[in-house]
Amino acid sequence: MVSSHVQPNPTPAPPRFELLTLGDELLLGLTANTHLAFIGGELARHGVELARNVTVGDAATAIAAEVATSWARADVVIVTGGLGPTCDDRTREAVAGVLGEELVFDPAIERAIAERFARFGRLMTPNNRKQACRFARGEVLPNAHGTAPGLWLGRDGKVLVMLPGPPGELQPMFATQVLPRLARLGLLAEREPYVQFRTAGVGESLLETKLQPLFDRYGDALTVGFCAHHGTVDVRLSSSDSRLGLARLEQLAAGCAQLLGEDFVCHGHDSLAKACAELLRTREKKLAVAEAATGGLLAAALNELCGACKFFAGGVVCCANEAKIQLLGVPECLLKQHGAVSAECAVALATGAAEMFGADYALAITGSVADGSAPPWDARNLPSSAGTAGNGATPPNGGSLENPVGTMFLALHAPHGTWSKKITAPGARCAARQKAVSTALDWLRRELLRAAA
Amino acid sequence: MVSSHVQPNPTPAPPRFELLTLGDELLLGLTANTHLAFIGGELARHGVELARNVTVGDAATAIAAEVATSWARADVVIVTGGLGPTCDDRTREAVAGVLGEELVFDPAIERAIAERFARFGRLMTPNNRKQACRFARGEVLPNAHGTAPGLWLGRDGKVLVMLPGPPGELQPMFATQVLPRLARLGLLAEREPYVQFRTAGVGESLLETKLQPLFDRYGDALTVGFCAHHGTVDVRLSSSDSRLGLARLEQLAAGCAQLLGEDFVCHGHDSLAKACAELLRTREKKLAVAEAATGGLLAAALNELCGACKFFAGGVVCCANEAKIQLLGVPECLLKQHGAVSAECAVALATGAAEMFGADYALAITGSVADGSAPPWDARNLPSSAGTAGNGATPPNGGSLENPVGTMFLALHAPHGTWSKKITAPGARCAARQKAVSTALDWLRRELLRAAA
Repeated sequence: MVSSHVQPNPTPAPPRFELLTLGDELLLGLTANTHLAFIGGELARHGVELARNVTVGDAATAIAAEVATSWARADVVIVTGGLGPTCDDRTREAVAGVLGEELVFDPAIERAIAERFARFGRLMTPNNRKQACRFARGEVLPNAHGTAPGLWLGRDGKVLVMLPGPPGELQPMFATQVLPRLARLGLLAEREPYVQFRTAGVGESLLETKLQPLFDRYGDALTVGFCAHHGTVDVRLSSSDSRLGLARLEQLAAGCAQLLGEDFVCHGHDSLAKACAELLRTREKKLAVAEAATGGLLAAALNELCGACKFFAGGVVCCANEAKIQLLGVPECLLKQHGAVSAECAVALATGAAEMFGADYALAITGSVADGSAPPWDARNLPSSAGTAGNGATPPNGGSLENPVGTMFLALHAPHGTWSKKITAPGARCAARQKAVSTALDWLRRELLRAAA
Repeated sequence: MVSSHVQPNPTPAPPRFELLTLGDELLLGLTANTHLAFIGGELARHGVELARNVTVGDAATAIAAEVATSWARADVVIVTGGLGPTCDDRTREAVAGVLGEELVFDPAIERAIAERFARFGRLMTPNNRKQACRFARGEVLPNAHGTAPGLWLGRDGKVLVMLPGPPGELQPMFATQVLPRLARLGLLAEREPYVQFRTAGVGESLLETKLQPLFDRYGDALTVGFCAHHGTVDVRLSSSDSRLGLARLEQLAAGCAQLLGEDFVCHGHDSLAKACAELLRTREKKLAVAEAATGGLLAAALNELCGACKFFAGGVVCCANEAKIQLLGVPECLLKQHGAVSAECAVALATGAAEMFGADYALAITGSVADGSAPPWDARNLPSSAGTAGNGATPPNGGSLENPVGTMFLALHAPHGTWSKKITAPGARCAARQKAVSTALDWLRRELLRAAA
């Protein structure tokens, strides 16, 4: 599938890839543009840096203008969306028009669509027929997970690829049909064109300051990129004119790792959850979680990993105080005295979860986060009417002077002790919950590292 | 904040908004472009349809070219990213260069940055100083959640807005500073320019076929958009030349709702979880969940809602069979005979969760989903070595002939009975888990609707 060694005619300038993502729903904020991250990531893993992504709506004129621009300057143009059966799906016609290609009805595609409907016992409505049109001189990329096939057109030494919008259809089609075709054309390489490592616990500017002495040795041969996520900062090393090979960059990354100590998480793209999972597996330890404020997100981050059963004993999501008392053995008097948003409650939850699941380690998260329906800077979230989660003891729109909305308590239970930690995450609910999950996992990671030493 | 009535000089053509999102990490697939969905959504809620979004990397030449293009054709250009302290943050300089604006060092900004570092007890490194540069004749948008301030430039009857990349900094800045400024300029309206409703259980093409007779009455005055998510399809009604007012479109949406019956979920953007929450609250019932395959995602979807304690009793995440047996009372012999991926196990999990949390309703999800590290079309996921989740009874890379990877069993426990349902979700792990969550919630929604009738 990878073919840098069969590249027929290597040119100094790498081929230019552009991506057009189409759909009013992307611009109206109704659907996240996941295609950019997926296609950009897949191409990068095969040595290609996507040069540009443009998103426009379903209007045929806007589609035609962007296709014309990209086709003129790029070697490979990938277009997503607008291939479906409904009236707002206009990509096929718009692209054919601007490139002067003929669309033909293909009975084989129609049969495949009809068979798909029959297989699911559903009615094939006549509007599905338009999905059976293809370029007269192009190829068809069959769709194993939906009705609209993809289309492939090679012309003028360039490639145009059109893919259906639903990620569940686009992603397998890209991986199994588009990448192999691009590889056969010698357009892909064996690995990503950069070296990345992940850090935690150090801000972006301090991280750069710490690492700069190592970077300075390479002058402008080295390109460094920083990218902050919730609780982690990624560092990307590359060399645009390839003066530094990947082996040299990996050596530099290893030097950074040594300098950073515990703040270094991993080479590559692994999540904090994965780093914890590997440490737990190596030590043959199991983890349990109890979540109030994060409501299942921590469990989901762990369960997402392959073979989670081996290190993740299980989790409890307990919003109401009754559940905290009855299932996890949090004393009622503790909740009365300290409230559910307290270090004491977090510790009791962690201890309770470890016992309940017979786990060696346990993480607990309790706290008040901003209301889901309104960000914290919204008037609905001002102290007098702020929303909470995980605090059944106070009114549903609680938060207190001592522990305002965004205050969370974490607890870590380990074989040799249980500790608590207070964090403040005054951002929107989703970001606050992500920050709590990252902080908890990074705490466990450091504890596991020390347990080994 | 909203000011369509104070619009100083209403013009027939609405102002054109374009968004430039900058950063190598977006094109390399390392970070999702959340700014498009956030800014596009916020603008839409204020009557503005974002016309175009372009993403390019950190190279100054690419940034300058895109800024020049957008500035020439749009009335408002919003630029995100590249304002940070590190060497790859080049937006300020690139934009100043292409627009011929002067950058000046602003000691007040530097003081604000220094104070922020002092407040968190961190060291302000010298590289942070570059964030204290602003346009000589522009305005500064203070950053309450980070170091880099935003910049606002009004010129030639146009507006340029530059915002920091981290969503936790950008989002509050946009909501509290950018939107009010745009409103004062008369660029915003009171509500979104469309009417949307959400459906479940009907495919996109059948949905259009069902609704077309209602749509046909309006000819080309009506614009219809369809957008499929996991388990739901949204329908968006608008009228680009405003021949149909929003009241008329709402009337049409009500007609569609009547025609669709139970398949109609809600007007607007509410999630299936929210629809369930409202039905549970009205009926004063509580829900519990037990998750193996989805590992906390269902609980997280419910807990995300404001006031979740009122209807969500709690949840258990149980990967290992021991947890299923000991916590939820699933009989060991049942697991031996039927396996963890079975209708029997799902029913026992739902019943056990309802009992454990004292809930009226319970949902359970068990099954085998594709390995997290590799999509199901990857060789690592072929039957012989497929990954599983939630099935401690079979080897970690299980899946069976009868229940291949992607098979999940759901169970719904209600006051008058418990039922199970088998679904197939052969897609990537994330999509399969989302599908299971949506299917479970839609099932509960329909059951609650019937319980009322």
